[in-house]
Amino acid sequence: MPGVSRRGFLAGTAGVAGVASTGMLLAACDNEPSNSEPNTEPLTEASVAFDGAHQAGIQTPTQASLNLAGFNLKDGVDAAGVVRLMRLWTEDARELTAGRNPLSSLEPEMVKWPANLTITCGFGERVFDIAAPDQKPVWLHDIPAMPREELRPEWGQTDLVLQICSDDPVMSAWALRHMTRAGMDYVETAWLQQGFVNAFGSIPKGQTPRNLFGQVDGTVNPRSDEDYAEQVFADDGSSSLVVRRIAMDLDDWERLDRTSREVAVGRKLSDGAPLTGEDEFDAPDMEALDEYGLPVIDKNSHMARAMPPADHPEQKFLRRPYNYSLPPAPGELSDAGLIFLAYQQDPDVQFTPVLQRLLEVDRLNEWTTHIGSAVYWIPPGTRKPGGEGSGDTYWGETVLSGARG
Amino acid sequence: MPGVSRRGFLAGTAGVAGVASTGMLLAACDNEPSNSEPNTEPLTEASVAFDGAHQAGIQTPTQASLNLAGFNLKDGVDAAGVVRLMRLWTEDARELTAGRNPLSSLEPEMVKWPANLTITCGFGERVFDIAAPDQKPVWLHDIPAMPREELRPEWGQTDLVLQICSDDPVMSAWALRHMTRAGMDYVETAWLQQGFVNAFGSIPKGQTPRNLFGQVDGTVNPRSDEDYAEQVFADDGSSSLVVRRIAMDLDDWERLDRTSREVAVGRKLSDGAPLTGEDEFDAPDMEALDEYGLPVIDKNSHMARAMPPADHPEQKFLRRPYNYSLPPAPGELSDAGLIFLAYQQDPDVQFTPVLQRLLEVDRLNEWTTHIGSAVYWIPPGTRKPGGEGSGDTYWGETVLSGARG
Repeated sequence: MPGVSRRGFLAGTAGVAGVASTGMLLAACDNEPSNSEPNTEPLTEASVAFDGAHQAGIQTPTQASLNLAGFNLKDGVDAAGVVRLMRLWTEDARELTAGRNPLSSLEPEMVKWPANLTITCGFGERVFDIAAPDQKPVWLHDIPAMPREELRPEWGQTDLVLQICSDDPVMSAWALRHMTRAGMDYVETAWLQQGFVNAFGSIPKGQTPRNLFGQVDGTVNPRSDEDYAEQVFADDGSSSLVVRRIAMDLDDWERLDRTSREVAVGRKLSDGAPLTGEDEFDAPDMEALDEYGLPVIDKNSHMARAMPPADHPEQKFLRRPYNYSLPPAPGELSDAGLIFLAYQQDPDVQFTPVLQRLLEVDRLNEWTTHIGSAVYWIPPGTRKPGGEGSGDTYWGETVLSGARG
Repeated sequence: MPGVSRRGFLAGTAGVAGVASTGMLLAACDNEPSNSEPNTEPLTEASVAFDGAHQAGIQTPTQASLNLAGFNLKDGVDAAGVVRLMRLWTEDARELTAGRNPLSSLEPEMVKWPANLTITCGFGERVFDIAAPDQKPVWLHDIPAMPREELRPEWGQTDLVLQICSDDPVMSAWALRHMTRAGMDYVETAWLQQGFVNAFGSIPKGQTPRNLFGQVDGTVNPRSDEDYAEQVFADDGSSSLVVRRIAMDLDDWERLDRTSREVAVGRKLSDGAPLTGEDEFDAPDMEALDEYGLPVIDKNSHMARAMPPADHPEQKFLRRPYNYSLPPAPGELSDAGLIFLAYQQDPDVQFTPVLQRLLEVDRLNEWTTHIGSAVYWIPPGTRKPGGEGSGDTYWGETVLSGARG
């Protein structure tokens, strides 16, 4: 397989030299493409570099298919066991994402076209407790209890997480299968959250995807490498991932007329523009009044409540949400929602205050319920063992080897 | 939306005039493309014509995402109710597949790019019992009990089925959502079988996809319109669908070396060629012996057992299989398999004898278990009400109106 797709290559040239995996949403480029340009890049030539300053799968444009697997360490797995698992998983993820067959697999035909496959690993609190207790980040703990949430234990915290994304669902399933089997001496699957967004090329280039409420979702994300350095990645290249599973009541939502839906969100359904603006990326005018002297954007709308207040500009993070849609329970019409993935440097500072504000007051709360929550440390990116440069040769090496200060 | 994709258009020109939906696998064209040509057709311009002599979604090249929904009629729904549901569903499916918003939907943005969406409807036995008992096809009954099968009631027969396929999983989920809600006065969901194959463009043009055993799957399918007329469609344009849900034990399968896997199937893993051949589409030589005088293709291999015997050339049908991969049960590594969709004129004659032969003896049986079964009559294609020509204006009109002889 060629190493880097045209999409990945373009993104790479705009990023830090040597970090080909730091793709960014094409919509974000200075040279912004038209919102109606079809995608004719061949997916068979698309792959994302595995090694780099940051793990791939974060700044990478969102791929169509998500297998997010939460794993728990088996009884008796100690610090040395965690190191062995990380060496093994890192090596296999490096091979799979490059379209090469991992050593332990007999099926090279299944990995020939990785279709932008990324495999991103995160550590739950317990990995630190077992392997590096004095290195645990201060923010690595459960998100505090929130109003309205109805968390279910089956979607709770796990020891490890793998975020496996690809533009080909077969590749995503195959990579999950391989990684699960490769780790079977060390971990067992606690949960699997399967999600999807629009397929590669199925909406015009540069369009922000919509969730199952029909809302444009992801407008306020970081765009430039500077945004990512400010919001998402710590100086050592690490990050954090908060997973919130959010059930969405499509049945009730769809009883609303379009105006009511737009008031609840604060944006137009047609293009995601704020109700005071013309374009998706226009800044909202929170002071604007309508002909009756009422605010155009409701102060309790989702957008208004999610915005960082003027005195807390640090309350920003990367949204990388996926839709889920499962067989409905008997008598129900649907079981759908969001696997909401938030990446940031420090959830306590950037994420949790926003969540708290939303779950206290947000018009959308009438149709959404948080049913799962987990927090992970995302190790920095890696380099090939024996390769040039410094940095970890496997996920979390600096922490697990006790080398982090 | 433009009406027909380049892919659909090419297929249409090779087919019957006016039946733009009769696409065929590109691999089948006389002018066969190279097996390594990337796909650069824009998916945003791809749609499949709804009306035609046959329903779309059968001869249509397999799209990436499947939502196969089994519905049961609510208590009290009579023949007139079935007619109302079919009018409503047919009209909404016609709109959705063309990228237009159905009357009852407020979300035109969600349907702009159907990405080869097809919605195909089937009738279970009970629809005939209620609405047209004297018109029930003789083959419309449960598949007879088979050796080895472990059928689960939750994957059993339903009154109606919708096969919803798209190359965009969001479109597929949205269409399912809409059709479920549109039919809520008449039906409730009994089961939902969600599957996937390789994404649009994620493997080179003309390649036959692989299942999660790594096998090339679909080599012996009908290719030409003549094949389809002989095997799949009755003279009135109707067909039948057999759904078999087949669990696959990936864990045990992956303990085999490649040679053992190839012996079990009778084909090479690398390219799907029969063990006696060089190319996927080579005819197998069942008499060939190896250097020890043993058959090259095991008489009990999957391929040998699935082949129609010389005196029963009619034992052929269209395979339109999808993979499934669900969260594993506690302590397990995977829960995966096939949603095996078989289309033919008459299951009793074409499908069931093959199934019987396979479930009696087939080396693959060691790693597969049939856990679900259902059979449906597939109504002929439709035409727009008020439009030219004759034929049904909604699914099953001729049968439901008592006009079929």
